[in-house]
Amino acid sequence: PGKKVLIVYAHQEPKSFNGSLLKIAVEELTKQGCSVTVSDLYAMHLGGSPPMPQVVSVLWMLRDGPEMTVNRKNLSSFCKAGLLPLLTGSWKKAGTRFHFLSAQFPLFWFSMPAILKGWMDRVLVQGFAYDLSKSYDGGLLQDKLSLFSFTTGGTTEMYSKGGIGGDIRYVLWPMQHGIMHFCGLKVLEPHICYAPENVSVEKRKEMLSAWTQRLKTLWKEEPIDCSPEWYFK
Amino acid sequence: PGKKVLIVYAHQEPKSFNGSLLKIAVEELTKQGCSVTVSDLYAMHLGGSPPMPQVVSVLWMLRDGPEMTVNRKNLSSFCKAGLLPLLTGSWKKAGTRFHFLSAQFPLFWFSMPAILKGWMDRVLVQGFAYDLSKSYDGGLLQDKLSLFSFTTGGTTEMYSKGGIGGDIRYVLWPMQHGIMHFCGLKVLEPHICYAPENVSVEKRKEMLSAWTQRLKTLWKEEPIDCSPEWYFK
Repeated sequence: PGKKVLIVYAHQEPKSFNGSLLKIAVEELTKQGCSVTVSDLYAMHLGGSPPMPQVVSVLWMLRDGPEMTVNRKNLSSFCKAGLLPLLTGSWKKAGTRFHFLSAQFPLFWFSMPAILKGWMDRVLVQGFAYDLSKSYDGGLLQDKLSLFSFTTGGTTEMYSKGGIGGDIRYVLWPMQHGIMHFCGLKVLEPHICYAPENVSVEKRKEMLSAWTQRLKTLWKEEPIDCSPEWYFK
Repeated sequence: PGKKVLIVYAHQEPKSFNGSLLKIAVEELTKQGCSVTVSDLYAMHLGGSPPMPQVVSVLWMLRDGPEMTVNRKNLSSFCKAGLLPLLTGSWKKAGTRFHFLSAQFPLFWFSMPAILKGWMDRVLVQGFAYDLSKSYDGGLLQDKLSLFSFTTGGTTEMYSKGGIGGDIRYVLWPMQHGIMHFCGLKVLEPHICYAPENVSVEKRKEMLSAWTQRLKTLWKEEPIDCSPEWYFK
């Protein structure tokens, strides 16, 4: 209760399965007393450029503590990187800084959609999310939690060790270790819905209620051991 | 000689190390008698929307043979996916279809820059690059070659098996197996320049001439065995 949650969401269609998973997370976490902010990346692209103070509040929101310096260098790299169009009204709750970063998206090409990768490329700038000698367990966003929740086109069998797509954990390495762990965030087990397009309506409902159930005890979960062994054992 | 080469390039600054690597590839391959087309993704974003015939020529260029059907479904998904702004004058050489697809970019967050991922997401659409039962060795772009050439921020040591970033091959899996192999392309050994920002001028020159040297005998290379063993052995 009282946890600040930021969900970065990358799907165009609110009525999609990803849209349902997002809705569930917002409702369940809000019910628990969390403060939930959604960054709907596709929707944000429709908007115009927000004023400069909002850029500062994003930096502020994402990182705890008064030591955050919005200096000319990181602010300008932030702006030059094109973050401005990504910022809209949902970021206006300045001063709220997240404890939990979740991403909801369909897996595209063994990775996140480009629009979500663009969010990572732009938001997680040096001096803000990490620094020269501050990465991994020393990353600047440490003591926060992260979770990737996504859907796949391929089935569980395809994404198993002997499957054509290989163990699903292989695709998690760049995202969880290379991004989240690099910035110091702890990583919870991913939440993966395999091939929802190709299962029955009943099975899809089960998938949705499994997500609701998981969220109920989310805060009791232990982060994974984000080491090569977890991914490639 | 006579090979058609498409280089997808993702760096803003022509004077960058990536810019130099691109220039070398264009010069050396042109000298060999190849027909080289560069898609400069950042530069293309500055341009406006090209007319529809250019979209068709991209499809045509990327895939061999008269069996390519530009039907309403794949063309419209192509357009809806926002490919139009990516298309500019360099695509005008309609009728040339590539034998070799190369990407030149800096590694961002254990992956390709978002703008390049966006190219993949948009260009490699179903019915064009793959289809329901046509993927991996049966992918629609088979008998073509691909190569990822990139720079890293981290050193060779960091990207070794015992290093903090893990074996560099771990990050190659989603890009080489998940994208190129999925579409049927054969994959050549990647060309990786580690941490060019942190080495001496002499070392950088050596890196550049190593690339020139490699390109001289590129067509004699055998593709890698793009299987889990190559990546995770």
